[in-house]
Amino acid sequence: MTLPIAIKPGAVVRNIPRTELERIAPLATYGVATVHEAVGRRGLMAPYMRPIYPGASIVGNAVTVSVAPGDNMMIHVVVELLQEGDILVVAPTSPCTDGYFGDLFATALKARGVRGLIIDAGVRDVKTLTEMGFPVWSKAVHAQGTVKEAIGCINVPVVAAGAYVNPGDIIIADDDGVMVLPRADVDAAVKNAKARAEKEERNRQAFEKGAIGMDLYGFREKFTAKGIYYVDELSDLIGK
Amino acid sequence: MTLPIAIKPGAVVRNIPRTELERIAPLATYGVATVHEAVGRRGLMAPYMRPIYPGASIVGNAVTVSVAPGDNMMIHVVVELLQEGDILVVAPTSPCTDGYFGDLFATALKARGVRGLIIDAGVRDVKTLTEMGFPVWSKAVHAQGTVKEAIGCINVPVVAAGAYVNPGDIIIADDDGVMVLPRADVDAAVKNAKARAEKEERNRQAFEKGAIGMDLYGFREKFTAKGIYYVDELSDLIGK
Amino acid sequence: MTLPIAIKPGAVVRNIPRTELERIAPLATYGVATVHEAVGRRGLMAPYMRPIYPGASIVGNAVTVSVAPGDNMMIHVVVELLQEGDILVVAPTSPCTDGYFGDLFATALKARGVRGLIIDAGVRDVKTLTEMGFPVWSKAVHAQGTVKEAIGCINVPVVAAGAYVNPGDIIIADDDGVMVLPRADVDAAVKNAKARAEKEERNRQAFEKGAIGMDLYGFREKFTAKGIYYVDELSDLIGK
Amino acid sequence: MTLPIAIKPGAVVRNIPRTELERIAPLATYGVATVHEAVGRRGLMAPYMRPIYPGASIVGNAVTVSVAPGDNMMIHVVVELLQEGDILVVAPTSPCTDGYFGDLFATALKARGVRGLIIDAGVRDVKTLTEMGFPVWSKAVHAQGTVKEAIGCINVPVVAAGAYVNPGDIIIADDDGVMVLPRADVDAAVKNAKARAEKEERNRQAFEKGAIGMDLYGFREKFTAKGIYYVDELSDLIGK
Amino acid sequence: MTLPIAIKPGAVVRNIPRTELERIAPLATYGVATVHEAVGRRGLMAPYMRPIYPGASIVGNAVTVSVAPGDNMMIHVVVELLQEGDILVVAPTSPCTDGYFGDLFATALKARGVRGLIIDAGVRDVKTLTEMGFPVWSKAVHAQGTVKEAIGCINVPVVAAGAYVNPGDIIIADDDGVMVLPRADVDAAVKNAKARAEKEERNRQAFEKGAIGMDLYGFREKFTAKGIYYVDELSDLIGK
Amino acid sequence: MTLPIAIKPGAVVRNIPRTELERIAPLATYGVATVHEAVGRRGLMAPYMRPIYPGASIVGNAVTVSVAPGDNMMIHVVVELLQEGDILVVAPTSPCTDGYFGDLFATALKARGVRGLIIDAGVRDVKTLTEMGFPVWSKAVHAQGTVKEAIGCINVPVVAAGAYVNPGDIIIADDDGVMVLPRADVDAAVKNAKARAEKEERNRQAFEKGAIGMDLYGFREKFTAKGIYYVDELSDLIGK
Repeated sequence: MTLPIAIKPGAVVRNIPRTELERIAPLATYGVATVHEAVGRRGLMAPYMRPIYPGASIVGNAVTVSVAPGDNMMIHVVVELLQEGDILVVAPTSPCTDGYFGDLFATALKARGVRGLIIDAGVRDVKTLTEMGFPVWSKAVHAQGTVKEAIGCINVPVVAAGAYVNPGDIIIADDDGVMVLPRADVDAAVKNAKARAEKEERNRQAFEKGAIGMDLYGFREKFTAKGIYYVDELSDLIGK
Repeated sequence: MTLPIAIKPGAVVRNIPRTELERIAPLATYGVATVHEAVGRRGLMAPYMRPIYPGASIVGNAVTVSVAPGDNMMIHVVVELLQEGDILVVAPTSPCTDGYFGDLFATALKARGVRGLIIDAGVRDVKTLTEMGFPVWSKAVHAQGTVKEAIGCINVPVVAAGAYVNPGDIIIADDDGVMVLPRADVDAAVKNAKARAEKEERNRQAFEKGAIGMDLYGFREKFTAKGIYYVDELSDLIGK
Repeated sequence: MTLPIAIKPGAVVRNIPRTELERIAPLATYGVATVHEAVGRRGLMAPYMRPIYPGASIVGNAVTVSVAPGDNMMIHVVVELLQEGDILVVAPTSPCTDGYFGDLFATALKARGVRGLIIDAGVRDVKTLTEMGFPVWSKAVHAQGTVKEAIGCINVPVVAAGAYVNPGDIIIADDDGVMVLPRADVDAAVKNAKARAEKEERNRQAFEKGAIGMDLYGFREKFTAKGIYYVDELSDLIGK
Repeated sequence: MTLPIAIKPGAVVRNIPRTELERIAPLATYGVATVHEAVGRRGLMAPYMRPIYPGASIVGNAVTVSVAPGDNMMIHVVVELLQEGDILVVAPTSPCTDGYFGDLFATALKARGVRGLIIDAGVRDVKTLTEMGFPVWSKAVHAQGTVKEAIGCINVPVVAAGAYVNPGDIIIADDDGVMVLPRADVDAAVKNAKARAEKEERNRQAFEKGAIGMDLYGFREKFTAKGIYYVDELSDLIGK
Repeated sequence: MTLPIAIKPGAVVRNIPRTELERIAPLATYGVATVHEAVGRRGLMAPYMRPIYPGASIVGNAVTVSVAPGDNMMIHVVVELLQEGDILVVAPTSPCTDGYFGDLFATALKARGVRGLIIDAGVRDVKTLTEMGFPVWSKAVHAQGTVKEAIGCINVPVVAAGAYVNPGDIIIADDDGVMVLPRADVDAAVKNAKARAEKEERNRQAFEKGAIGMDLYGFREKFTAKGIYYVDELSDLIGK
Repeated sequence: MTLPIAIKPGAVVRNIPRTELERIAPLATYGVATVHEAVGRRGLMAPYMRPIYPGASIVGNAVTVSVAPGDNMMIHVVVELLQEGDILVVAPTSPCTDGYFGDLFATALKARGVRGLIIDAGVRDVKTLTEMGFPVWSKAVHAQGTVKEAIGCINVPVVAAGAYVNPGDIIIADDDGVMVLPRADVDAAVKNAKARAEKEERNRQAFEKGAIGMDLYGFREKFTAKGIYYVDELSDLIGK
């Protein structure tokens, strides 16, 4: 979507704040659903963002690119700014499904240690990307090519798939989708996610043995107060 | 969608009619496309209902849940009512893509012998669900969490993904989608599906040897009567 | 979509121009994304056309069918006209997601050497189709059956998923989507795609070694002329 | 969507239970939003059902038609069964946007006292329909014609735009959408809607004078208990 | 969508065949729904093409423009080629909702006698366009601006909203949508539409007097042969 | 969409920075399309945000509300914080089409001088809202009611319909859509929009007299350099 702030078009910001990769590594292990809960349910991209193949799980530092619809000039520009552990986030200024990115870009990015691409638009060469193990979360898969005519911006705040992304934010992506986490919240996120994951593991073991969340979580009284009531048969309800 | 009948919100119906699992087992073997044909093409959910992983094929008794958008309270409530061979059917009262259900719920349901989830909304933890072999057919995959604040209903008639589901209806789901079958129609459905599958198998063998449906099904005369006509070349048609 | 030309409904054109399969074989190797670029970016179907399983890659001669919504009569009619190396292209006259085609049709088509189905509508029996290795690109997967009541046309020009297809056009389909190529352009397409693929292979090797497209493609000066400019930090931009 | 029950295709049920028009007349005055609230929020069709012109508001007895996609045969069949005060409800067995209905049908229906059309598909001749004052709520406006080849059913239960409709149910439609009400609930609905409308009118007058719902409805304490809390400035929140 | 034929990008074709305006004038009177029927139901654009205001009805000669997504350079180029009675048809090479066209363009086009715009993308300044009485049928209304960087083509065949349009084809547009008619078919279309409109007018008068299409069209016997059957009450069907 | 920052749920910020209404008044006169251009094309909401009636044009200070799906508790909370010239911006934390807002809310807001509602969800009572002249831009019109159970936040940054909105940002909305402008940019926006509007007025007069943008804007040489080329007839291109 269109940029949230006033910036003279064509801006390329060379440097972003990056977070040490070992500090953020646990977030990929906990996964998007758990981390999203652990930080108060924020920063999630829209559900139309889907991985090109199942099973990938990444975390990294966001390098952001704002592109014109159907124009990948700025992806060429951003390559040399990318570093080990980065995740490229591409947002068009209006809705677009074109295939901005393919296997050649992925080869260059993989050589630089980039961990994946998040693009609120289309991607192509997905068979090769799958074979290379270069994960992409996108709105579409489309062979449609792009031009290199219109300038955009690099490493400025963008809105991608409904989420606000600052350059240097942490991106976490897996089969459940994509989320964004501000740098300042990393340590709290790791700590909370760890606690949550441990609690979930205990609960899982209880559930495997037949426990009921109504009891385990103490919901029975609360829900009754909310107004749930029991009858034995549907016929007890109908026409009453 | 909103409930079709007048029920005081919060109703939890404990018991549903269930059909013996061995009686319905053949329906999973025949599959949705065949059974749907065998019963006169009815009860199909909308095509946006997709499995989280390919290859699963289930049949079971429907336990229905009507939930508020973004609120999974009633899924907690329903767990203890679920039995071996049940399939959980969740329908929000207005369109929603939130991830109502994840791996903890699946653990509890698997422990009770539940065969899968049909949800006209979102699901999360799909990687773990896939590893567990707990199949889900959903409208979306989304990490977005839900709250536990608004009451709904359990085991009342619902409309899910365009299909009307009574508690205790039979659910059949595979890679072709999800269908609903009233209990009264089970035996006829099994019988007709068996006949249809056997006929299809005979036709398949004929087709493998090069048979043509036009002859095998006797369509040639009927279609000519409908008005099809043959020319040799496209140029015989254009401009005439 | 509705037919682009005036044709008395029910027309079945028996013969189409076909291109020798060895001449078009390389196009499947180069793939949709590369061939689409090699011919000047044209003939692509819409991105909603997705394969029922990943990894298939086909090329063949288009046999076109215009069908009524929810009616597969003409697919029965077309079977005997299909030959080795053909690809069946089915376009409804108005948007439809019904499952026009299943495993019995696929068996008959495979027996005749047909390479796959492109359908701007739905398909069913996808698990069996996957096991058979009969690839389909479709708009939907749906068990919903069709009738055999309304006449259509065979081997007339159609618009399918936004692309104009003449009978005898070349179809190329893989994980990136589906494209259409006029027969007259085959040799140029093969030649250009080969050149492009070789160039891409050289570039790939350069990228693996860390080359930058900005230099390799000579974009640096051009893009600067377009107006990109560099700053070191985001704070250098904001509020200026 | 596909029918919820087993019926031999082609069934035309001549008679439906109808409710006296004067008994249901107040429901149009109260409108969909108010009645929907008054009956516990049920029976609403999906939000994609929109009127072809603003300002119409109708109530009547539902005559239901299940049609094949792209086929309006059964609308021809139903005409002679329609009476003063009826509302025609048309549901295709799979999603369709074709223009099933135009000004000639509307002329015939208007002559019989039919109050409007609810169609989970397309309509055409909307300019003439607007001039005639024959209201339609539809999923699409499309000139695309239909055929008369495939049988359907009349006055059987259908699911239309996500709502379950029994023949003889009451339909209420206005600029806010379309809802369905079982006959048994009419008197309670009128009574509750009247009470609600009167209360709303009192509240409206209070709001016009500057009243606050937080006080008027007594929400302040309840919401505080839910966890809302006040700060003076956004800066009081950020980074805390 | 992408162009159907091989053309070196940037091509501007100065001249198109135009049809005398008095010859095509009756087509606007008959309207899209009637003409579409009169020519055998072809050439209709997708139902998402909607007028920016109700009531406009135009016919004219198509001047076609293929544009890049988000780039209106070629609309600037086409202006001087437009003549009295032309209708501008704009198709992006991939899906786009940007506002390519606004009131300044409309002023220039109106000064040249252009009758309206058909754009498979977005338009803006719709309030002013409405006040000017310059009709537009579009996929979206969006203020989003476009650039002028990427070349396209003028007066080449395009696919717009699912319809194939040759330069010089006749465009007819009204509240029911947009259709395309090849020049060669104009006289037959006018003749058939006139006959159809006259027949419809006779039928309308009959319907106003209470006639039934089942009798008027002689459908009763045909539909019975198709398999419709009558029962008096729904209870005669259920469970049988 | 989910909040971009870490905030303990339930936060209600009482005060926002507001801009003097006379300073922003001109922005409504220039309109969204012009102001959007004047500030470098940013801050636009998605094209699915449509007015409930045509012709409204507003500007005001944004009061933001983040709500749970299907829950309008926080709209009750925000009322007393609203002032003359405010525009209420409501964003659900996940996609929702429910009718959060109706005529009673509008009455209360109108009494406080609020200029309109921007809601990335549904609205109801649209006939009454139209009669009251209280404009709303929404994603949907739906009678579906909401509950008052789940807390949200007031006057925190939100992402609404793809745009990032800070409390106190300027909202401009008309028939072309909705845009957001940071407070710091108001004076530049007014100045640039004025200059742009004056220039457009001059151009309009030139266009009315038959001027061509190619000359007026000096595009002829630039576009030729981009690669456009002229031929007289389409036949000069085909097959070459």
